[in-house]
Amino acid sequence: MRIDLINTGTELLLGQTLNTHAHWLGGEFFQLGLRIQRQVCIPDGDEIRLALLESIPRSDVIVVTGGLGPTSDDITREITAELLGLPLEQDSLVLEHIRAYLARRHRELNANSYRQAQVPCGARVLANRFGTAPGLYFPPQSGVMAGVGQTPHIFLLPGPPRELKPMWTDEVLPILRGLLTVEPPGLRNFKRFGVGEAQVAETLEEPLRATGIMELGYCARPGEVMVRVIGSAAALDACGVLVRAAFGDRLFSDTDELMEQVVVRLLRQAGRTVATAESCTGGLMANRLTNVAGASEVFGWGFVTYANQAKERLLGVKASDLADHGAVSEPVVRAMAEGALGASGADYALAVTGVAGPGGGTAEKPVGTVWIALAVRGRVAGEPVTTTVLREHFPFEREMFKAMTSQTALDMLRRRLGQEQA
Amino acid sequence: MRIDLINTGTELLLGQTLNTHAHWLGGEFFQLGLRIQRQVCIPDGDEIRLALLESIPRSDVIVVTGGLGPTSDDITREITAELLGLPLEQDSLVLEHIRAYLARRHRELNANSYRQAQVPCGARVLANRFGTAPGLYFPPQSGVMAGVGQTPHIFLLPGPPRELKPMWTDEVLPILRGLLTVEPPGLRNFKRFGVGEAQVAETLEEPLRATGIMELGYCARPGEVMVRVIGSAAALDACGVLVRAAFGDRLFSDTDELMEQVVVRLLRQAGRTVATAESCTGGLMANRLTNVAGASEVFGWGFVTYANQAKERLLGVKASDLADHGAVSEPVVRAMAEGALGASGADYALAVTGVAGPGGGTAEKPVGTVWIALAVRGRVAGEPVTTTVLREHFPFEREMFKAMTSQTALDMLRRRLGQEQA
Repeated sequence: MRIDLINTGTELLLGQTLNTHAHWLGGEFFQLGLRIQRQVCIPDGDEIRLALLESIPRSDVIVVTGGLGPTSDDITREITAELLGLPLEQDSLVLEHIRAYLARRHRELNANSYRQAQVPCGARVLANRFGTAPGLYFPPQSGVMAGVGQTPHIFLLPGPPRELKPMWTDEVLPILRGLLTVEPPGLRNFKRFGVGEAQVAETLEEPLRATGIMELGYCARPGEVMVRVIGSAAALDACGVLVRAAFGDRLFSDTDELMEQVVVRLLRQAGRTVATAESCTGGLMANRLTNVAGASEVFGWGFVTYANQAKERLLGVKASDLADHGAVSEPVVRAMAEGALGASGADYALAVTGVAGPGGGTAEKPVGTVWIALAVRGRVAGEPVTTTVLREHFPFEREMFKAMTSQTALDMLRRRLGQEQA
Repeated sequence: MRIDLINTGTELLLGQTLNTHAHWLGGEFFQLGLRIQRQVCIPDGDEIRLALLESIPRSDVIVVTGGLGPTSDDITREITAELLGLPLEQDSLVLEHIRAYLARRHRELNANSYRQAQVPCGARVLANRFGTAPGLYFPPQSGVMAGVGQTPHIFLLPGPPRELKPMWTDEVLPILRGLLTVEPPGLRNFKRFGVGEAQVAETLEEPLRATGIMELGYCARPGEVMVRVIGSAAALDACGVLVRAAFGDRLFSDTDELMEQVVVRLLRQAGRTVATAESCTGGLMANRLTNVAGASEVFGWGFVTYANQAKERLLGVKASDLADHGAVSEPVVRAMAEGALGASGADYALAVTGVAGPGGGTAEKPVGTVWIALAVRGRVAGEPVTTTVLREHFPFEREMFKAMTSQTALDMLRRRLGQEQA
């Protein structure tokens, strides 16, 4: 079933309003096992004519959003009726709805209300509980347009999200469900820590396709690569086996969880806590952890020690280590992690120190250099703290550097928790 | 000048990824005095052929995003070259760029690298500072397509925003500016702290329009309202007078600076420092401040005290205050701010404590309740610390709550700095 989505609205083209309809409706269709083949955004006014003329011959379903309102550039209803050769007639039920809707707001029918109550013959009214403009559904017709055997199912929906969403759920979904003949396919997102979209594709593309999946896609985000597969349950399970074998413990989610959600979940499962000591990430690790509801169970103490004095006083980093090795060094990151562990009493502590740039780089420690440490408290009395350190180089602009660094640190903890819980 | 934007990416049509490129590029064109006439979104793969065939005859400029990557569904480059009848040739400079880019990441050239280094004859390479795939610019050509006198200016840009945005600014904008025949009008963004887009519109709409501006827009973001005006220099100046009179010291920028950029700039100008003590914002304030280059001059100490014990031990909050008034209370936020000031030696300290939710609300302190404090060190010996506190209620979901709270705290400091520097 080939689906076109047409969004009307000048504000969507000027960088003023983000087109959330395309996103939301894409997800809605996808849950039905359908997908939008093309999404088009046009300004208010006469462009809708050309957009419909292009879409009608190639589509089975067309959804148009916007252009049903009361102002002079709202002409979606009129143009659609004209192209399908359907005369408009006043609908007394729609007019009564508009009259009652306006009355509740102490307003009266006006000239535009009568326009909104015009319904093309043969179209079905989609009730609008939250506005005046009704939606419209045009069932397929034969022989109304040259070269088009049968026109597609056409839905005209209002632009405001609070009108569109309930109309979609109450009125459009039942019609679409009636058109479906097969069970929708499944989707799975596999998220791998690290970079290298190309590398992933090179290794996995062929074996994944051989499972008989319908679709395969990749998406790279800071410090992670997502592999998206769509297909039957059996094909998705086969993909899972391949991906787990290829990614090993770099695979951090097959359910679309964020890295910080995985870390908080694993900590909650284990009944353990983490503290953070951040120099170059400046609070981003703590911020990510506390974006997850329930973080307070596993995270109580965070240190943002941008200044050397803060590293000394709050975390017990030695002045001599700072002087001898510099703030971006292995001894300092180790002391930061162990200091945070000691001060907070947490079970784990993550520490990072690096050169975020743009200034501050040297030949030995160029911009992007970062040290990361994970300190782990011993489990039994007398067992010492063990600390793992890692040096990385992320030569990116500031926010990307912070994102990569926090991702790498969180992944260190995630893998440790995974090993302990295995 | 008629402009089409084509966004490729299956994830944009499945409800997985919001199409922010359409929004951002719409704004960019708009600042040049141009506007996108049509935006089209298509899946990865062969749909780009049909989309280009439709756009080429009707456009003066076409921008395509995505499909330049290394994987098998990235075919924008090949299809465009084919439609324009241009053979592909390996570009040694591009290959060298890819080789160097990969080498910095300890990776090597692979088969896909050679594909990315193929450049259509006659196309100009747009340098990609943040990725391997070069962008491409195809100047207009005559007689390559039936029925098309001259092909449009065609720009192929990479999909990842961190690659696309700098390429747009550094490479595409200069070319577009060269095509403009009239001076673009001026644009100014006035940013006001607080909420109330409708209220701002109601008060300012008429007087602003009376200045003779060409366009007026509003945009609401967490804790701020932006008024955007476009027009002649004289009209923009007149708008500035009106906006300053209406907003007073709630106006925090007329240059599109972020709140945290304003705060860091004012602190640097004053040669002063700030410390943060965060409970419910969990590091977001520190993270925002340290997103600004040069933050280390003005910010050295941040405390993320999610746990009560952390509030006591790091900030000296009294156990009795926590027991008597609860962690979300006026005495506690005051002690947090003063404790952070004392421990860090900073000139100012911001503290926040609140109920982020979803759990933890009570009748007296419902979810969304937050206390914010600003402690200010005395300027001369013996002058005491003065602390201002504020209670707010932001009944929003977690990340919005954190954004509003951090915005309000940063604005407290901004206004204080503004008064002191006035």
